[in-house]
Amino acid sequence: MLVFMESIASESYFVHFNERAYQSLNEHLNTYGYSMVFVLVDSNTHGHCLARFLANVETALAIEVIEIEAGEEYKTITVCEDVWNSLSELGADRKSLLINVGGGVVTDLGGFVASTFKRGINYINVPTSLLAMVDASVGGKTGVDLGTLKNQIGVINHAQMVVVDTEFLKSLPLEQRRSGLAEMLKHGLIQDQEYWQAMKQWDLKDLVSLDPLIHRSVAIKNLVVTEDLHEDGLRKTLNYGHTLGHAIESYLLDNEHRKPLLHGDAIAIGMVLATYISSRLLSFPEEKLDDISKALISIYGKESFGSADIEEVLSLTKYDKKNSHGNINFVLLEDIGEPVIDKRVDTKLIFEAFDYYATL
Amino acid sequence: MLVFMESIASESYFVHFNERAYQSLNEHLNTYGYSMVFVLVDSNTHGHCLARFLANVETALAIEVIEIEAGEEYKTITVCEDVWNSLSELGADRKSLLINVGGGVVTDLGGFVASTFKRGINYINVPTSLLAMVDASVGGKTGVDLGTLKNQIGVINHAQMVVVDTEFLKSLPLEQRRSGLAEMLKHGLIQDQEYWQAMKQWDLKDLVSLDPLIHRSVAIKNLVVTEDLHEDGLRKTLNYGHTLGHAIESYLLDNEHRKPLLHGDAIAIGMVLATYISSRLLSFPEEKLDDISKALISIYGKESFGSADIEEVLSLTKYDKKNSHGNINFVLLEDIGEPVIDKRVDTKLIFEAFDYYATL
Repeated sequence: MLVFMESIASESYFVHFNERAYQSLNEHLNTYGYSMVFVLVDSNTHGHCLARFLANVETALAIEVIEIEAGEEYKTITVCEDVWNSLSELGADRKSLLINVGGGVVTDLGGFVASTFKRGINYINVPTSLLAMVDASVGGKTGVDLGTLKNQIGVINHAQMVVVDTEFLKSLPLEQRRSGLAEMLKHGLIQDQEYWQAMKQWDLKDLVSLDPLIHRSVAIKNLVVTEDLHEDGLRKTLNYGHTLGHAIESYLLDNEHRKPLLHGDAIAIGMVLATYISSRLLSFPEEKLDDISKALISIYGKESFGSADIEEVLSLTKYDKKNSHGNINFVLLEDIGEPVIDKRVDTKLIFEAFDYYATL
Repeated sequence: MLVFMESIASESYFVHFNERAYQSLNEHLNTYGYSMVFVLVDSNTHGHCLARFLANVETALAIEVIEIEAGEEYKTITVCEDVWNSLSELGADRKSLLINVGGGVVTDLGGFVASTFKRGINYINVPTSLLAMVDASVGGKTGVDLGTLKNQIGVINHAQMVVVDTEFLKSLPLEQRRSGLAEMLKHGLIQDQEYWQAMKQWDLKDLVSLDPLIHRSVAIKNLVVTEDLHEDGLRKTLNYGHTLGHAIESYLLDNEHRKPLLHGDAIAIGMVLATYISSRLLSFPEEKLDDISKALISIYGKESFGSADIEEVLSLTKYDKKNSHGNINFVLLEDIGEPVIDKRVDTKLIFEAFDYYATL
C-alpha cells in the first residue's frame, strides 16, 4: 500500500514524509545559504541508514560525516564534547548545518550539540527508529542524560525540518519497533480512542499498514505540542506513563543485577500503573483498565518488582523534570482520550499499583 | 560622590544598580514562586563578595551555595557537569533559581548551566568584576570554552535580572579593572567620542567617578544589543578589536612559553590593530589613530609578536564565531563612533598592522 502522507506543519518547521521529504530537504539545502553540511550518525545508522540517506541528498555543498557510538549509555555530555570538537576540527562555522540521522539518542544529542555550538547552528532531524519518528521528531526537545538521570541537560530548540523516511524501519530490530509502539499507544490513550484500538491490534511485523499510523501519531503529538509550547498544560499529557516509566528505566539501567529495558518497554509498565491509579482516583472505567493492561502485557510481557525495587524507583521520581517543590505529579486519565494533569499521588497508592501489576 | 543610577531596561529584563538592585532582587525572589535559590560563586567571589551579597538578600527561600574554581581555565564543560550534578544532588527542580555572583567566567558559565538544566531554569547575574559589569551583564550570551577556543559552546538566553553592585569593585585587583576598562574604551570607540575621551583619561585607582561611567557603558551596550538581538548588524560592532584580540588571547593562553593576557589586555591590542587597518581601508583619521594607539599603549603596555606568532594568531581566527564560509571579517571604523561591519581584510594588511604595532 502506497500512502501519500501530507507534510505536517509544526510551530516553525515541517515534518515531511518519504519522497516528499527528500525533495523538501534538497530544496532547503540548496537555497538556505549553508557553508557546509555535517551528518551525525551512530555506529548502527552508519551501517544501515547513511548510504540510503546520502543517495537521496542532492547538493553541491561539502558533506562531512561524524559518528558516535550507538546506545543510550552514550547520550552524555562527554560525547557532545567529542562532536563539538569534531565540528571545530572539520571547520564548522555558524552557517553550517547538522543533520542527525538516527534514533532518539542521535536526534536528542545532535539537536543539543547544534543548539549550543557557537551559540546555535541549524539542525535537521532524520529519525530512523519508530520511537524517534513518533516521539523525538516533534517538539524541539534536545538534550542528554546526566549520569542515570535522563534528559537532565538540554534546551528547547526546533529543528529546521524533520525528514521521516519509513524505509529505515525495515532494518530496525523488532524490539525497537515495540519500543516505539509504546509512544503510539500512549498517543491513543491520551487523545484518540479509535487510534488506541487500531494501535493495540497492530502486528509488529506489519510494515505495510504502518505509514498512516505513524502519520497519525506525529499529527497527535504535533497538535498537543503546538497548542502548548511551554508545557504548562496540554503538553504535560505526553508524560502519561512517564513519571514511573522513566524512573523504572533509570533504575534498571543503573542496577547491575537487572537487565535494562528499552524506553518504550519501561513506559508501557508506567502506563499500566498510571491507568490503575486513574481507576482509583478518577474512576477511569474498570473494563478499559483490563483491556489496556491485557493489551500492554501481551505486547511487553512483565517485569517483577520487590518492595526494595519500588522504593528505589520512587526515590528516582524526585529528579523528574516535571516535579517541583518536592511533589510527585502524575498525568492520569478520566477516560481514554481524557487526560488530567498535575494529580498528586501518594506513595501508598503507587505501591498498590505495583501490587495490581504483579497480579496481571 | 553618590550618584543615583537609573535602572536600564533591556529586552526582557532590567539591569539594576546598587541599593535599588537589592530592592528589586528581593522583590523578585519573594514574588516569583521559586522553590529554592542556588548561588554560584568561584573561589575568589566566595571570599570577597558572597558575604556582602547574602547580607543584602532578604528571603525565606532556602539558599544553597555552589563553588567552582576561579579562572578562565575552569570555564569548561567539565565544570558545568560538576555544577549540574551539584544542582541535582541539592534537589534543584524546574522552579529553582540560579544566581551567578562573579566575573565573566561565573556569569557566562552559570548562565549556560541554568539555561540547560532540565531544559532551562531562571538565572540572575550579579557581576562582580568591571569586565562582567560592562560586558557580560547585558546581551544574554552564555557559554563555556572548548579547549582553547573561547565561548564555542553556549546559548543566547537572558537573565531574569542583572544586579550591579559597584561596591564589589573595591576588592577587584587593579589589573582586572584595567581589563574591564578595555570594553568601556571600546564602547566609546564604536559609539561615543565624548565617552572615549572621558574613559581614556580615567585613572584606574579612581573608583569615585566610576559609577556614572559604568552606567554609561551598560547603556551603550544595551542600546546596541536591544536594537539588534540576532547579531546581524549593529551588534557585530561590539566585536571591535575582538577578531584579532580573541585570537591573540587564545594563542597566548595555549602557548607555554608566553604569559597569558587578560581578556581586556588582548582586546586592547586588537583595537590598535583594527584602528590601524581602519586608517588604511576606510581613511580613519591619522591623528585619531595616533591618539588611540598612544592611549592604549600607555594603559596596556606592549607585547611582541614574531611572524610565527602572527601566523598562529591568524590560523585561530578561523574559529571565530563571527566568521563563516572561510572569510575573516572585521569591524572597522570610519571615525570614532562610526563603525562598519563585515569588512574583509587580507592577510598582508594584518601583518602590516602588526608591524605598525611593533613601532609604537
